[in-house]
Amino acid sequence: MISTHGMTRPADLSDVRTTNLAVVLRFVRTHAPCSRADIAASTGLNKATVSSLVTDLLERRLLRETGLTENRIGRPASMLTLQSRPYAAIGIELAADHLVAIAVDLTGERLLTWRRAHAGLDGAPGRAEAAVAALAGRVVAKMAAEQRRVLGLTVAAPGLVAPGGGVRFPPHLARPALDLGAALERGLRHPEYDVVIESSANLAALAEYRGGAEADTPHLIALVGGVEIGAGIVADGRALRGGRGFAGQAGHLQVDCAGPRCRCGRQGCLEAVAGLPALVRRALPDTAPDGPIVDYAPELERITALAGNGDAHVTGALAETGRLLGRGVSMLAELLDPQVVVLGGSFATLAPWLLPAVQAELAARAPGETACRVTASTLHPDGAALGGAMLALDRLESGQLPASAG
Amino acid sequence: MISTHGMTRPADLSDVRTTNLAVVLRFVRTHAPCSRADIAASTGLNKATVSSLVTDLLERRLLRETGLTENRIGRPASMLTLQSRPYAAIGIELAADHLVAIAVDLTGERLLTWRRAHAGLDGAPGRAEAAVAALAGRVVAKMAAEQRRVLGLTVAAPGLVAPGGGVRFPPHLARPALDLGAALERGLRHPEYDVVIESSANLAALAEYRGGAEADTPHLIALVGGVEIGAGIVADGRALRGGRGFAGQAGHLQVDCAGPRCRCGRQGCLEAVAGLPALVRRALPDTAPDGPIVDYAPELERITALAGNGDAHVTGALAETGRLLGRGVSMLAELLDPQVVVLGGSFATLAPWLLPAVQAELAARAPGETACRVTASTLHPDGAALGGAMLALDRLESGQLPASAG
Repeated sequence: MISTHGMTRPADLSDVRTTNLAVVLRFVRTHAPCSRADIAASTGLNKATVSSLVTDLLERRLLRETGLTENRIGRPASMLTLQSRPYAAIGIELAADHLVAIAVDLTGERLLTWRRAHAGLDGAPGRAEAAVAALAGRVVAKMAAEQRRVLGLTVAAPGLVAPGGGVRFPPHLARPALDLGAALERGLRHPEYDVVIESSANLAALAEYRGGAEADTPHLIALVGGVEIGAGIVADGRALRGGRGFAGQAGHLQVDCAGPRCRCGRQGCLEAVAGLPALVRRALPDTAPDGPIVDYAPELERITALAGNGDAHVTGALAETGRLLGRGVSMLAELLDPQVVVLGGSFATLAPWLLPAVQAELAARAPGETACRVTASTLHPDGAALGGAMLALDRLESGQLPASAG
Repeated sequence: MISTHGMTRPADLSDVRTTNLAVVLRFVRTHAPCSRADIAASTGLNKATVSSLVTDLLERRLLRETGLTENRIGRPASMLTLQSRPYAAIGIELAADHLVAIAVDLTGERLLTWRRAHAGLDGAPGRAEAAVAALAGRVVAKMAAEQRRVLGLTVAAPGLVAPGGGVRFPPHLARPALDLGAALERGLRHPEYDVVIESSANLAALAEYRGGAEADTPHLIALVGGVEIGAGIVADGRALRGGRGFAGQAGHLQVDCAGPRCRCGRQGCLEAVAGLPALVRRALPDTAPDGPIVDYAPELERITALAGNGDAHVTGALAETGRLLGRGVSMLAELLDPQVVVLGGSFATLAPWLLPAVQAELAARAPGETACRVTASTLHPDGAALGGAMLALDRLESGQLPASAG
């Protein structure tokens, strides 16, 4: 089944058993190895219920007994842990000029990481979608060859992901829409596992929330830099997606009245002053592109190298970019009061030079207050793809379990 | 017990019975009159469980049997509804220059609405707090005289509500902090019911979500105008409060590069161009205040009267204000993707003249997209106080029930 908007929702109260299976699964993930008695003591479920739930999860091959017992007061207990073998969760990021595929097992352990170039989002209609579907097919085949059952596959897409798997872009980009849902349905031949299409920034935030350096921080924003800028918002431990799933368009917060006109028509938008094209113009003014730049990797490398050598012009340009980025971060902080903003994408690459200015701007805004923390992603450049893989695990832990036949 | 941060949280899964009591209560509120069989059919709880839960709620005097029966297929069933008599929930708004107190019964029916002037937030330390505590005491006494038990009392406060009931203001306001928690604890003499202090904008949003014209819209923002501007954000049916409860500071989104300098130090902030002082300067340029204006009610009345008479300068000023407000709304819409933005406070008063420009600005930002709706609050000027009263009902429905002795 292909769907969108796959982030965790509260489990239906009417299905208490499913909820409790998910509670046990979540407990074992965070506390393994642990015993049935540990689960009962911490979740408040009674021992007979826990026993029955664990049996169910063992049958579904989601848990396994380590065979180890641990001596405590009372009888030795058989210890439980997540199964690492029989399942795989897959995430694929469709970025501006490349694809990243990541598969993980139930424990979140990385099974593969593949990167591929593609022809770009502005190319012939259908090409980007076909590239995603082809790569997805190869990853699924590889997992099948390893006798792993696919729990779910998530594509991290740029732009606005509409229900049905279509991807649209803000009108000012004048970029053709993508029909990822249909391409995946065809390419994966009506898969039995869930295929979800979700925005890259939302998945980057999920990856930070589940597995980044700031994991489990309930109020977290992933702010992802690039040609465009997007935010993934986690509030109270839940993804904030908005009514249509279009939340997180942070690129058009206005941060610099003296800044250049943005493609969107306004002046001094965050994207227009801290997106990659603006940064390249500021840091490498001598760069004269012989056409529209699609892949900014060479420029980003050159900026990083020059900054690493202490080039005054480049570090100055980065400090200025950081100051403007800091204004955007401070607006996000005032509006959403996150505990931490994790910088991803190009912001993560350039974090050593951006962060001091970002933090100074935030502190200037909130004298006497404890400003929210700002850090660089430790998952970069895999955040969105990793978040895609983790989404399948997340759905599992909110009660969407695979059938018993392993 | 005095607390802050009282918005709904997920019920603890370990306490299934409490959760189920709350589920039944919620069902009866939205479907009354209804039978035990209706509840069982819609919630998925079995009939014996529903019977036991209903008995419990009858004993706590939260439900009552109407005595009516309804003929359907099968036996006639005794119908249930919420008790209106024995309880009251109280909300008190501390606004810049006045107080509003509202009490409602369990069904949300209004029991009283009182308005009082106070000496202002910038006056002698402790005076605003004392005014709130005195009014709270009088409302509680009135409820006691009517033999109603207070379920909870919520104070809607401007500024940033810190844990412990202190209220701080952004540093640029240079306004003394308020110690509401301590004043209420003293004034109400260690109340047995919950006393919560919460931001006015968050409570305005709760009132819209529970009882406004846009009730039950899961993604909703209440944007409240005044001297300062605040937003209450509901995402996926839950209040978004942020890590410290400081979310919703929307007044410093930058919307007009040509705009005046804001008290916060930036230029063209939403508050600096669409707050009351800016509006008065724009609409009534001949107004020469003989000192700092504390109460903008006379100016607001004059603007409304002139606009109602079609005064071209004033309607032009309002259209310009609406255009700038629309830029702020469009940033909120891009960032949070609400289904509706409900304008409250001074924005609600001026809505007939502001809304067309706000909507035009939003539509211009999203050609081809369905922009989010923008409407004027139908609860104005009672939104925050009403939301305060409703918070006690909201907490009840998330499982914080009063003890059995009615």
